[in-house]
Amino acid sequence: MKKAETKSEIRRIVSSVKADGKSVGLVPTMGALHEGHLSLIERASSDCDFVVVSVFVNPTQFGPNEDLESYPRNLSEDLKRSEKAGADAVFAPSAGQMYPEPQKVWVDVEGPLTETLCGAARPGHFRGVATVCTKLFNIVQPDRAYFGQKDAQQLAVIRAAAAQLDMPLEIIGCPIVREESGLAMSSRNDYLSEDQRKQAGVLYKSLMLCRELFNSGQRDTSRLKSKIRETIQSCPSAEIDYIEIVRKDTFQPEENISAESLAAIAVRIGPARLIDNITLKP
Amino acid sequence: MKKAETKSEIRRIVSSVKADGKSVGLVPTMGALHEGHLSLIERASSDCDFVVVSVFVNPTQFGPNEDLESYPRNLSEDLKRSEKAGADAVFAPSAGQMYPEPQKVWVDVEGPLTETLCGAARPGHFRGVATVCTKLFNIVQPDRAYFGQKDAQQLAVIRAAAAQLDMPLEIIGCPIVREESGLAMSSRNDYLSEDQRKQAGVLYKSLMLCRELFNSGQRDTSRLKSKIRETIQSCPSAEIDYIEIVRKDTFQPEENISAESLAAIAVRIGPARLIDNITLKP
Repeated sequence: MKKAETKSEIRRIVSSVKADGKSVGLVPTMGALHEGHLSLIERASSDCDFVVVSVFVNPTQFGPNEDLESYPRNLSEDLKRSEKAGADAVFAPSAGQMYPEPQKVWVDVEGPLTETLCGAARPGHFRGVATVCTKLFNIVQPDRAYFGQKDAQQLAVIRAAAAQLDMPLEIIGCPIVREESGLAMSSRNDYLSEDQRKQAGVLYKSLMLCRELFNSGQRDTSRLKSKIRETIQSCPSAEIDYIEIVRKDTFQPEENISAESLAAIAVRIGPARLIDNITLKP
Repeated sequence: MKKAETKSEIRRIVSSVKADGKSVGLVPTMGALHEGHLSLIERASSDCDFVVVSVFVNPTQFGPNEDLESYPRNLSEDLKRSEKAGADAVFAPSAGQMYPEPQKVWVDVEGPLTETLCGAARPGHFRGVATVCTKLFNIVQPDRAYFGQKDAQQLAVIRAAAAQLDMPLEIIGCPIVREESGLAMSSRNDYLSEDQRKQAGVLYKSLMLCRELFNSGQRDTSRLKSKIRETIQSCPSAEIDYIEIVRKDTFQPEENISAESLAAIAVRIGPARLIDNITLKP
């Protein structure tokens, strides 16, 4: 497996691969790779001839009081796991490599897609995400890029940016990978104590109870959200950031579910802000 | 010469050219091609194996009270001139082809680069320019794209977007082509009567007198701007939109010229808003 720290190195690697007519997959990550990431690498590896994993904790998607400093970093372990999962190259640039001067150019996605859920809770977050992904796509020039469905809104924002800016690649969303408790895999799960990690199972449990209610015919989103809220509130250390049900295509909140929708939640447990979601299909 | 009206057609044409290992140049235009455009096509044709000219009057770069409706359109003439100048393909999409749904994703360039000169006079203009160019670059995937120095701020905005988003292409600026009177070639010159066209020579004349003063040692930009203003005001039908002297790298206005700078003007004559600029090198 190759390792590149600069744009020119990874460009050289990819262009020689492309000259051989091979397809290229990109798995953009912030490192601290867990089984969710590994499932993306494996999927990319089965779809594409050559797989690049990028490892970059992107400063422009963190707010001023967020966890940029403490975000887990472990490149040597990431390299081993990437290789084992089938990566052919890891691109691990420094912040100075990605942003050699103050960034003035941004990819902005407007509308409910970035104004609801995490967009409302984390102003500027999706601008940073869309911008760094655009940069990574332009540097690596993959045929396909892989993202996890856990970050459902991120996936939708990137799909919109790729579609409306006519980016020449395919965006592929992959299923959430969960711990035994149901807790969605996340690098931020590392922030949790063993006890908090157990308690964090309540997120998925609440979504499962919501789905059960939905499957029994309930379409009123305030009822469905109440079920989630009650369940999470049964866990004393959980602090709700948001509980929302939105149309999956537009991320517009709705009163009654009439189209494929997303029940999405953000909950703080101890030092970690955790997100999760399920799809509700009428 | 090939002609494409859809993204998929032009992508098919370019990808077969690239598969042969040929280099691709793009000349983005809004049509109504004049000798300025033709000089870009000729330059591209001498640099690249295959030249695509795009002809698209981009609605997102026009303000609500601007000349989107009346902007000159003459595709059959543009096709002939493109071919004669050395184009291998013309991409002439409809607005619906470029914007199949309301645009929500934008490339925003922040700072003096878009806040001064035409950025101040035409709010949203450079957002539209940067976005449509990003789309065209992603559709055509050229190795190089060619722009005229007449639209100096546009060129700087596109250079910044390409650099800071790591777009995999080279942006090439080409010299202004002028009519005999000194008037910079522009599709909007078509709006002028014969008499107005003669009077419009005052723009270049004012810049030449500014350069003369600069060459004699004057570095005070208010003095230099006064010279331009006096000259233009000698033409009764000319209405000044702005006269500005800015650093060429940052587009920041300055009091005294210490680095390579741009004297840039926008002047209305009759129905046309005309722009021009010269470089001042200390």
